[in-house]
Amino acid sequence: MIWNTNLRWRLPVTCLLLQVALVVLFGVFVRYDLDADPHWIGSQGDENTTSDMENEFYYRYPSFQDVHVMIFVGFGFLMTFLQRYGYSSVGFNFLLAAFGIQWALLMQGWFHSYKEGYIHLGVENLINADFCVGSVCVAFGAVLGKVSPVQLLIMTLFQVTLFSVNEFILLSLLEVKDAGGSMTIHTFGAYFGLTVTWILYRPSLHQSKERQSSVYHSDLFAMIGTLFLWMYWPSFNSAVSKHGDAQHRAAINTYCSLAACVLTSVALSSALHKKGKLDMVHIQNATLAGGVAVGTAAEMMLMPYGSLIVGFICGIVSTLGFVYLTPFLESRLRIQDTCGIHNLHGLPGIIGAIVGAVTASCANAKVYGIKGLANFFGFDGFKTSWDSSMQGKFQAAGLFVSLAIALVGGIIVGVILKLPFWGQPADENCFEDSVYWEMPEELKSTVLHPEDSTLKPAEP
Amino acid sequence: MIWNTNLRWRLPVTCLLLQVALVVLFGVFVRYDLDADPHWIGSQGDENTTSDMENEFYYRYPSFQDVHVMIFVGFGFLMTFLQRYGYSSVGFNFLLAAFGIQWALLMQGWFHSYKEGYIHLGVENLINADFCVGSVCVAFGAVLGKVSPVQLLIMTLFQVTLFSVNEFILLSLLEVKDAGGSMTIHTFGAYFGLTVTWILYRPSLHQSKERQSSVYHSDLFAMIGTLFLWMYWPSFNSAVSKHGDAQHRAAINTYCSLAACVLTSVALSSALHKKGKLDMVHIQNATLAGGVAVGTAAEMMLMPYGSLIVGFICGIVSTLGFVYLTPFLESRLRIQDTCGIHNLHGLPGIIGAIVGAVTASCANAKVYGIKGLANFFGFDGFKTSWDSSMQGKFQAAGLFVSLAIALVGGIIVGVILKLPFWGQPADENCFEDSVYWEMPEELKSTVLHPEDSTLKPAEP
Amino acid sequence: MIWNTNLRWRLPVTCLLLQVALVVLFGVFVRYDLDADPHWIGSQGDENTTSDMENEFYYRYPSFQDVHVMIFVGFGFLMTFLQRYGYSSVGFNFLLAAFGIQWALLMQGWFHSYKEGYIHLGVENLINADFCVGSVCVAFGAVLGKVSPVQLLIMTLFQVTLFSVNEFILLSLLEVKDAGGSMTIHTFGAYFGLTVTWILYRPSLHQSKERQSSVYHSDLFAMIGTLFLWMYWPSFNSAVSKHGDAQHRAAINTYCSLAACVLTSVALSSALHKKGKLDMVHIQNATLAGGVAVGTAAEMMLMPYGSLIVGFICGIVSTLGFVYLTPFLESRLRIQDTCGIHNLHGLPGIIGAIVGAVTASCANAKVYGIKGLANFFGFDGFKTSWDSSMQGKFQAAGLFVSLAIALVGGIIVGVILKLPFWGQPADENCFEDSVYWEMPEELKSTVLHPEDSTLKPAEP
Repeated sequence: MIWNTNLRWRLPVTCLLLQVALVVLFGVFVRYDLDADPHWIGSQGDENTTSDMENEFYYRYPSFQDVHVMIFVGFGFLMTFLQRYGYSSVGFNFLLAAFGIQWALLMQGWFHSYKEGYIHLGVENLINADFCVGSVCVAFGAVLGKVSPVQLLIMTLFQVTLFSVNEFILLSLLEVKDAGGSMTIHTFGAYFGLTVTWILYRPSLHQSKERQSSVYHSDLFAMIGTLFLWMYWPSFNSAVSKHGDAQHRAAINTYCSLAACVLTSVALSSALHKKGKLDMVHIQNATLAGGVAVGTAAEMMLMPYGSLIVGFICGIVSTLGFVYLTPFLESRLRIQDTCGIHNLHGLPGIIGAIVGAVTASCANAKVYGIKGLANFFGFDGFKTSWDSSMQGKFQAAGLFVSLAIALVGGIIVGVILKLPFWGQPADENCFEDSVYWEMPEELKSTVLHPEDSTLKPAEP
Repeated sequence: MIWNTNLRWRLPVTCLLLQVALVVLFGVFVRYDLDADPHWIGSQGDENTTSDMENEFYYRYPSFQDVHVMIFVGFGFLMTFLQRYGYSSVGFNFLLAAFGIQWALLMQGWFHSYKEGYIHLGVENLINADFCVGSVCVAFGAVLGKVSPVQLLIMTLFQVTLFSVNEFILLSLLEVKDAGGSMTIHTFGAYFGLTVTWILYRPSLHQSKERQSSVYHSDLFAMIGTLFLWMYWPSFNSAVSKHGDAQHRAAINTYCSLAACVLTSVALSSALHKKGKLDMVHIQNATLAGGVAVGTAAEMMLMPYGSLIVGFICGIVSTLGFVYLTPFLESRLRIQDTCGIHNLHGLPGIIGAIVGAVTASCANAKVYGIKGLANFFGFDGFKTSWDSSMQGKFQAAGLFVSLAIALVGGIIVGVILKLPFWGQPADENCFEDSVYWEMPEELKSTVLHPEDSTLKPAEP
Repeated sequence: MIWNTNLRWRLPVTCLLLQVALVVLFGVFVRYDLDADPHWIGSQGDENTTSDMENEFYYRYPSFQDVHVMIFVGFGFLMTFLQRYGYSSVGFNFLLAAFGIQWALLMQGWFHSYKEGYIHLGVENLINADFCVGSVCVAFGAVLGKVSPVQLLIMTLFQVTLFSVNEFILLSLLEVKDAGGSMTIHTFGAYFGLTVTWILYRPSLHQSKERQSSVYHSDLFAMIGTLFLWMYWPSFNSAVSKHGDAQHRAAINTYCSLAACVLTSVALSSALHKKGKLDMVHIQNATLAGGVAVGTAAEMMLMPYGSLIVGFICGIVSTLGFVYLTPFLESRLRIQDTCGIHNLHGLPGIIGAIVGAVTASCANAKVYGIKGLANFFGFDGFKTSWDSSMQGKFQAAGLFVSLAIALVGGIIVGVILKLPFWGQPADENCFEDSVYWEMPEELKSTVLHPEDSTLKPAEP
């Protein structure tokens, strides 16, 4: 099918409308948190806090910056592996994330930081907004190369909204622990994205097949993304954990899990190639699965060896997924998953949710200490064991809620995105920057099918 | 015109002379700040400071590292967009910044950290030195591709000196607030650089026109620069703010402004292209204007919606500048601005100064609290409103001082750089690495006009 | 000579065996440090520590993340300068580092964090594990392009072990100061790697000579590595220094030394080229020597001008080494040092050890204060001067121990790696990704000598 891909009015109008709406909503609703307000200095005296260091900023800001790098450079460059889709990978990721964080500040703010008529912004809100957008970046990986920037903005608008609802149900209603977002970010993002791409199934996508692969330098650009994700993942999983030991522990566990995951990914990648050669796709992606899969349990007493085991398993599962599952999903289930997010975020996310549920179930006063248990889970001392297994069940429930909302939401959003006026590329022009970007001279000769010059723009 | 571009003696001699002078001056003048001196442990006891955390290092170091990345990777890679000037963009930026930070430590030290015959270095000095060099990197963007590394070192020597004088006038004499440097860094750097490039006008630059554009992968390298600047800008604007809420607030405001700026940059980029296609130049540059424009006001009570509005406007202004103003400046005013710094740093810097002046004028005890106002601006409680408007006027005065020093200084330095013995490239060899770099075999065949082999070196 | 390079069983089996062993050893030995354990909250109350900020995490975590980036992106990308070895440079570095950090956590844990039957992990262990792997990355630079990933894993296994023994002798038995690892990391890593590559000498390596150089974009990728190493080196040298002034001072000294080193590297690079052109190899490598050479002394009272002098000298020494020494080593001593690690880590490491010994010898109560001296070196007040010179002598002894263990260990490991069944590439296939990697279509036509298809796999 052929659509008009000239976005001259659609993209500007969408961006400007969204941004104007955000300005108005921020004006009505958003103020600073006390820690970012000049009145803090007064409050400090009142509460007898003697050190400026107690400002939440110093507990969270370094982690925030690491997470910020993961969202913009990490996800952006991870997707540049395609030979002719580097501008779009980095650029559209930049666009959707810049919109998404603003919208997430509002949505998450209404649910979690709303007091006396205002949302109060602090550094933790910035981290959570980045997290929320992380789930959109995950879903972007499934539809990469097949959608227009207008579609991405629409998808972001809905996905951030659904994410916030899901997160509210999990964290506030079910009182689930999910600091690194195995459920809220990865499972939700992956199955939402897979559902959307299932609805947007393109039967003639093989016409763009020659561009759905890498060239030498595009793979190196992608490794920049991979490595920044991998290196900063300990910050991701610990960024919003409780101060002190929980944040410390989350970083250690994530570090361990990711290290183990690299070795098993390499092992499987080589074992599954007939000449024992490594595949960059696995190195770029499967090595990260260990970070996804300790997202829930990293701040718990998973133990370093527990983290290694989780990473060990996920490197294997994820690489097997790339080799066997992705082709199966495409040919049998008509799910065209460009970046293989099912292997990097879907399966490891589910594993992470299960690991979290089991680890929470096993919590007891011997391992955590009575004070530690009360502090970490909020359990009262005497009914600990009952609460632990209850917590485990609620954790498991959280997984199912996330999956359900992802699937239902994905269908609805997919249907909306299937409407023919969003400027999506034709099947033979997928994975191609020149549809939406002014190209350097060297590449202008690459002729595209001329759908955008023969058709007249459908709207003003 | 043809100059001798063989730098065999000029560049080494310049580098070594400067570095020897720096060693001597450091030997005479530079010592450690108390917080970096082993006597700190004694002083800690005296003042009854109980925690090592109170060392200034822990308040500033994470921000310092982010700023450091912006200067070296951010600016360095942002300028790699040219197809044949990547070595020089990254390499010369590296060279001038490495020299500039040392010279800035001295110059700023004499003005701000000079006690009992010595400059006392601490982490805040490192940040300020990086800031100062930031303004040189801005100016480098205007002359990129048209000057030799010797010229860049000379320019850095003078610009750092002028920067420090200007900064001293603003911060110490006019008591202006400018934590993120809208005036001192961006406005000063941009108009200084534009004046220099105006003096160095090359009438036959069109002979190098075919190299003054990007290739596919050079644009992706440039996006590395863009993203690291964009992501770490909250650290830039908050790095030297007061501890606690001011630093916190500066980060939040910058985050908001930058996010809004991305959407309006994309909107305008698409709207101004006849087929609605995006231009990488705008995505690489205009998206950053929002960070420049809250440089002065970010630590003030600009409010999150105020930040969004500033970012909104700057994305539009900056993109319009790239499309209409840069060609106008080149054709009518003979200002050849290679990277379009007028759109990214010049105009947004002026907007930032105005936003800062207005925000400061509006400060009052209701918004800041009496204690907050006294702490932040140093106003006494009773004469607050008078002081606010006064502060606003002084802020505005700071803008004019910065512009004046930039223009006068730029003319003087431009004239010095116009001297014929600095090894500048011929008009037909601009934007070309092979003039100053040993090239890989693949590119050696690219023949250059042989000015450097036919002319004999002019000095030893 | 021709070996079978099909790693289908060798690489997976090696990875999986190592990882299983690590899981078991972690299960038996590794627990959390108190600061990462939920019992911390109880202990906090006991010791009357009032602030969560006192958790070691907040003192070290930002530095840890910077060091982590240096190991994975810094070293990984620094080695991508070769035209056809980018996948392997980044990918094998990723693999060996991911294995090495786990093994280092155990080895260093047994020596330094072993209490009551368990190794107690905290953020400082993570940093030290990264440091240990840093020395493996250094050695990797010497053998780059000439070894298989299996060989690299074996080398890592042994080198981490030897590193930990050497580190224990230096830090615990000789009580040497070496926070930034001039001796333990750089000198040890470099001479170990050089010895290994000497044993692995390939007489027909010239057959791969045309690939042992860069292309334009591979040099830009390498600059990413260079800059992240350069920018974050202040974190590297200060990461495990004592809280407060020592950490602060180490960062300042490293910043200064690196800045000076850039200018002298550029000066020499230009002076040594007959047309005065700069060589990317020098800019990528020699500019970093200043960080290596203050590794021991950075936390001492080296003084800012002392740091500049060290950087000044190292830029010169390192660049001269690249121009004159590396060819000499290859032609006369049969040491094929792919990345020139002798110039970047070997010589500067030795200089750093000497600078450290001299600086320690000069320590006295006037410079450090009585309390400072006691705190920093652990000297008792009255026998200070004796202890200073003694400390200096022990520092010097540390250098010789490191060299001895590197040479002896390098010979043993080299001989092991020379065994013919590790899958090493033939001399004519060195510096070539396609031996071990599935390549993109564009490059598949590059025919390789068919040793891996004609030979039958030697093991199952």
